[in-house]
Amino acid sequence: MDRRSFLRASAVGGTAAAATTLAAPAYAQGKRTLTMVTTWGRGLAGVFDAAQRAADSITAMSDGQLTVDVKAAGELVGAFEVFDAVSSGQADMYHGADYYFVGQHPGYAFFTAVPFGMTAQELSNWYYHNGGMEAHDELGQIFNLKSFLAGNTGAQAGGWFRKEITGPEDFQGLKFRMPGLGGEALGKMGASVQNLPGAEVYQALASGAIDGTEWIGPWADEKAGFQEITKFYYTAGFHEPGAGLSLATNREVFEDLSPAHQKIIEIAASESHQWNLAQFLSNNGSALQRLQSGGVKVLEFPDSVWDAMGKAAMDTLESKRDGDLYDKIYDGAMASMRASSGWLTRSEGVYRTQRDRILG
Amino acid sequence: MDRRSFLRASAVGGTAAAATTLAAPAYAQGKRTLTMVTTWGRGLAGVFDAAQRAADSITAMSDGQLTVDVKAAGELVGAFEVFDAVSSGQADMYHGADYYFVGQHPGYAFFTAVPFGMTAQELSNWYYHNGGMEAHDELGQIFNLKSFLAGNTGAQAGGWFRKEITGPEDFQGLKFRMPGLGGEALGKMGASVQNLPGAEVYQALASGAIDGTEWIGPWADEKAGFQEITKFYYTAGFHEPGAGLSLATNREVFEDLSPAHQKIIEIAASESHQWNLAQFLSNNGSALQRLQSGGVKVLEFPDSVWDAMGKAAMDTLESKRDGDLYDKIYDGAMASMRASSGWLTRSEGVYRTQRDRILG
Repeated sequence: MDRRSFLRASAVGGTAAAATTLAAPAYAQGKRTLTMVTTWGRGLAGVFDAAQRAADSITAMSDGQLTVDVKAAGELVGAFEVFDAVSSGQADMYHGADYYFVGQHPGYAFFTAVPFGMTAQELSNWYYHNGGMEAHDELGQIFNLKSFLAGNTGAQAGGWFRKEITGPEDFQGLKFRMPGLGGEALGKMGASVQNLPGAEVYQALASGAIDGTEWIGPWADEKAGFQEITKFYYTAGFHEPGAGLSLATNREVFEDLSPAHQKIIEIAASESHQWNLAQFLSNNGSALQRLQSGGVKVLEFPDSVWDAMGKAAMDTLESKRDGDLYDKIYDGAMASMRASSGWLTRSEGVYRTQRDRILG
Repeated sequence: MDRRSFLRASAVGGTAAAATTLAAPAYAQGKRTLTMVTTWGRGLAGVFDAAQRAADSITAMSDGQLTVDVKAAGELVGAFEVFDAVSSGQADMYHGADYYFVGQHPGYAFFTAVPFGMTAQELSNWYYHNGGMEAHDELGQIFNLKSFLAGNTGAQAGGWFRKEITGPEDFQGLKFRMPGLGGEALGKMGASVQNLPGAEVYQALASGAIDGTEWIGPWADEKAGFQEITKFYYTAGFHEPGAGLSLATNREVFEDLSPAHQKIIEIAASESHQWNLAQFLSNNGSALQRLQSGGVKVLEFPDSVWDAMGKAAMDTLESKRDGDLYDKIYDGAMASMRASSGWLTRSEGVYRTQRDRILG
């Protein structure tokens, strides 16, 4: 039985096991099953893979002492219920995009992405070396969670529209799906913004409940099938320049684990962060070519739209200031971004420009 | 005793332990010490940290069942001897830059960096999702190694010069330190190229044995002290657009480990790859500012130099074609790079340009 079959089989048996786990964690021969609820539909391209990657690594590295049982959205709790489920101990861990939980605390936005914020690499720089991980933990202490980054989509596409966008006025009254603070910023531009979990977006777009949507990027968007409904695709977006995904463990569950098992969860999550980013980026190029071949018009927003997005984004980020933890996270993230982006421009940026000029 | 002290103490006792380990791996209560030799001076900024990070993760995640004892260059074998030491079983694993071993096989260059090749993210895309890891393993089978990426410096600086570079003719006769195929390309431009391990570069530059050097980037270069000797610093280079570092285990040692311990090594290495890249990039910005404040002139090569570098680079890469494994690695890496770079330009590239235009 290969690993994939093994995991499928264990997931099938997982519902019965989970009921036991929830009441009192099952220790059988020192083994423990950890139930991971997610904000993702089963098999959703890239994002579910990131959850499964972290789960597989934890199970394999602990030699099965920890077995992570991954639940898709709706299998145990709904997509947006995972935060409360893990915080309360109903489930052991969740994998999801933390900006779904800005209602719990607006600071969570920074651990996915904020409009006009950090790229995936800039997020890593902040998270692993400039205080981001510690800030994530400070939030987690409030909500009884121990959180780690565990996936990244890279810069997300501007999204799918029924017609070309020629200026900021085109967003007036537009019913558009966009979560997080990006969605709030789009609201300031006059859009009627919806926050739908991934599994519900296609149907909403097909039925006309929304006029357009952002999702992730060419690879995941193509699999979602948005090109069957709309034909105008904007590659660059302002709202999620490098969207991190998180793995959060119930804090008491985490603290009850051995130091070795704690380290296994930490490193498995961190490894999934880079593995998943590379997964998205290695698939997006060819997917974009297929979309274009299939008749999708691939575009960029004009400068006037970017200017309006920039103003709305900064207004939104500033409006959340609380003189407390949000400010600390916001200011820390932006300082890190500014410090590292200059070098990236002068080294890799100059290199890529020269390479692409010369190699064509 | 904190973890750092513990590791220092175990390294001090490591020489005696190593002798036993080499003759016959010591199994005491199921525990095993793995000797990691490196191409780095002890504590060398960033690169030694990547080795130590992977070693610490392996030790912690295995609950001390595997204890990795990190040796700096010269402590057990010299920097450039680590490959043969691990291949032959004299040491259990090495951490180093695989392009030091292009003499063993030119294909190794791609697992660090090749001139006009992949950025750090493009390397990840290829390595983890487009065949790179499998190609690394194919090379490893020839040399009795099991290799993983385990660190990345990001795009390296063009380097340190005693005077401004105004055209490709300035490289004629220039005694310059640059390893790998980048160095070979620089030789085609007329330079007299030296391949020195990091620990020896400062002295060579100070004594006039070399006229200039590349090393890594502002943070590591500042710590090395090159600004004390030369004042002209080029931020963007053609030679190492995203230099991967490798952790290679003796293949028999690796195959003798349990599947859980094998997975621990694999994931620890992969996690160090991203952690280390973020470490370099989070430190380079402020270091560049300090260098500038200290009187270093920060420059970019003119287009005429980039054109000459491009020609020399492509000539070098093509000259290694062997109708066999090199071609497979080269063509696979370049195809992956081309496939993923287009999307990066249209998404993150457009975003960063707009963000920097608007935020200033």
